[in-house]
Amino acid sequence: MLNFDFYNPTRIVFGRDRLAELSTLVPAGARVLLVYGGGSARKYGTLDKVTKALGSRVIYEFGGIEPNPRYETCMRAVEAARAENLDFILAVGGGSVIDAAKFIGLAAKYRGEASNLFFDHAAVSGLNSSIPLGTVLTLPATGSEMNNNAVISYNHGKWPVYQDLNFPVFSILDPALTFTLPRRQIVNGIIDSFAHVLEQYLTYPVGAAVQDRLAEGILQVLLEFGPRSLAEPENYEVRANIVWAATLSLNRLIGAGVPQDWSSHRIGHELTAMFGIDHGLSLAVTFPSVMEIRRSQKRAKLLQYARRVFKLEEKDEEAAIDAAISKTRQFFESLGAKTRLADYGITAVQLPDLAENLRAHGWIALSEHKDLTPEISLAILKNAL
Amino acid sequence: MLNFDFYNPTRIVFGRDRLAELSTLVPAGARVLLVYGGGSARKYGTLDKVTKALGSRVIYEFGGIEPNPRYETCMRAVEAARAENLDFILAVGGGSVIDAAKFIGLAAKYRGEASNLFFDHAAVSGLNSSIPLGTVLTLPATGSEMNNNAVISYNHGKWPVYQDLNFPVFSILDPALTFTLPRRQIVNGIIDSFAHVLEQYLTYPVGAAVQDRLAEGILQVLLEFGPRSLAEPENYEVRANIVWAATLSLNRLIGAGVPQDWSSHRIGHELTAMFGIDHGLSLAVTFPSVMEIRRSQKRAKLLQYARRVFKLEEKDEEAAIDAAISKTRQFFESLGAKTRLADYGITAVQLPDLAENLRAHGWIALSEHKDLTPEISLAILKNAL
Repeated sequence: MLNFDFYNPTRIVFGRDRLAELSTLVPAGARVLLVYGGGSARKYGTLDKVTKALGSRVIYEFGGIEPNPRYETCMRAVEAARAENLDFILAVGGGSVIDAAKFIGLAAKYRGEASNLFFDHAAVSGLNSSIPLGTVLTLPATGSEMNNNAVISYNHGKWPVYQDLNFPVFSILDPALTFTLPRRQIVNGIIDSFAHVLEQYLTYPVGAAVQDRLAEGILQVLLEFGPRSLAEPENYEVRANIVWAATLSLNRLIGAGVPQDWSSHRIGHELTAMFGIDHGLSLAVTFPSVMEIRRSQKRAKLLQYARRVFKLEEKDEEAAIDAAISKTRQFFESLGAKTRLADYGITAVQLPDLAENLRAHGWIALSEHKDLTPEISLAILKNAL
Repeated sequence: MLNFDFYNPTRIVFGRDRLAELSTLVPAGARVLLVYGGGSARKYGTLDKVTKALGSRVIYEFGGIEPNPRYETCMRAVEAARAENLDFILAVGGGSVIDAAKFIGLAAKYRGEASNLFFDHAAVSGLNSSIPLGTVLTLPATGSEMNNNAVISYNHGKWPVYQDLNFPVFSILDPALTFTLPRRQIVNGIIDSFAHVLEQYLTYPVGAAVQDRLAEGILQVLLEFGPRSLAEPENYEVRANIVWAATLSLNRLIGAGVPQDWSSHRIGHELTAMFGIDHGLSLAVTFPSVMEIRRSQKRAKLLQYARRVFKLEEKDEEAAIDAAISKTRQFFESLGAKTRLADYGITAVQLPDLAENLRAHGWIALSEHKDLTPEISLAILKNAL
């Protein structure tokens, strides 16, 4: 087991009918910046319940946070927060809205040019205050509701900003709020969560048996409940397990003390940027191919994944690994996701540009071994055709 | 899944050679109350490393915290903390030392008679400050290093005090610090951790698949690494998994959103009080018998435990449950723990007094169903002879 620090102060308020508790969770007398995305939070009544629970508190509404939230959008909210002396942010939405809210809270207290926070790590770690944040999660996927990362789009790139001030003070997770989500968003969320676990699990053994068992447990839940959550979109029990699994997939717990990969995510980000493929769907293409091309580097964990997660008992270890990769692909396809670039009409001639984009964005040494070059990324992409 | 709140702000600092980081973890200029137990922390050099890392900070040493820490002992430390204006507590030890430190920190800020805190829940929940606490864990067992509970002995009883102010600010977990522990303490710790998981897992199904998988994973780690940690007391990797598993067994995560039992603990406490049986060893007696006597109430989870934790594939479900209970008993015995009251020379005539003590201490409605009467406790004890 590698040395690690684990810290996560977010209070999770999980279950049915918890929205009314905003009346005590948000400080009395707070001046609230209410951040949300498109119209669904209003359409399905969530915003009404939120504003009712906030009672007489001052509320400044800021809707229209886009997927992959943009710096410029966030800065408009920062201006409003400053002008109106807002001292609490309430984010109602999924990962994009919550990420934007985190950045808004940091930027509002930062005295310099806020885009510095994407490049100047000393400036980020030197921050000592932000506007406190609470969230109401409406989309299980990113884990942003219980972690300290915000990813913001700026100048044709996506930039992570890690700061412990980003941890929400509280997050309300009511699985019933996700019943009205479009199927495609649920599919994306399940695949994203599954990939989050794999990025922290499918590397090489370091004797971290606890972390391995927790990761395998979450994977098994997603395998079992993922398809059911599509077939039974209003089954509370099924959705509750998807929501809690998604949060625990990226709240730092299973990644503490183990190597991490994240190359499937990096390559997937380029697919999203160039072809507009949804983030979760991009991972359904990249992950099976990463498993195939990085099979020797990941062999021991691939075998463990085969034996423990899929209960594959083939005596021949290579056959068990083959079957595990195949079952991963089948899982994504069972959710309706495509796992081949050709399914999106992408051809071999387009791939070198993708690999070059990775280089241009600085991703020349990916993976848990820091040895996955743009050339290997290209091989992964070709293998995914 | 039941509705739940989950909150745990303790920073875990895990790994080899982390003690020196006390120099930054403890506030500069803090006046430190250094709390520890017997002589082992000094004998094996841990206290020397701690005081060195604390540098020029004022240190007031308070050793001699006993197992099952006593109110009177804690209050002597409270007097010192007040007299010396101490503003940070550093606990070096296991659950007893950490529990005492939590209570000292609360009581030092409480203006009334501190023993009220055992009975007056409004007084406890009304507390709004304590002396902040950091811990250096030397014994994996109780989870106190990452939870909000303190158990103090007062007036022939053991009293839990739950308060979010009890969460340590940080806890340093260096598995190597546990290498010198006597075998008996490791045995107690493994059984205690295993029982903590079972108390939160072996109840009735509520569709909490995530929590079930996490609990099953921790049980599997304890089954695999428990015996190895006795056979190889200085194997870092093995001990690291025991330490992290023990912490996660009682940090509220696996218990969030599920029913909890705790009757094996309550009955075990009476065995400890009357016969001086170590806490962990008492659970090796009570838990198998609780499984047998409460088999019908726990049937579904016992079967799941058999199938998933022990991989028992007997077609006959009752045979699988029989085997799981038998394997639990064998596990405890493989660690050198006795699982029968007769092994301690206890006879049937002594048992009614134990059951009466449960009644006298108010434990007349134990278990996840609140239907386990002192009469049923007596049946559990008789079955354990």
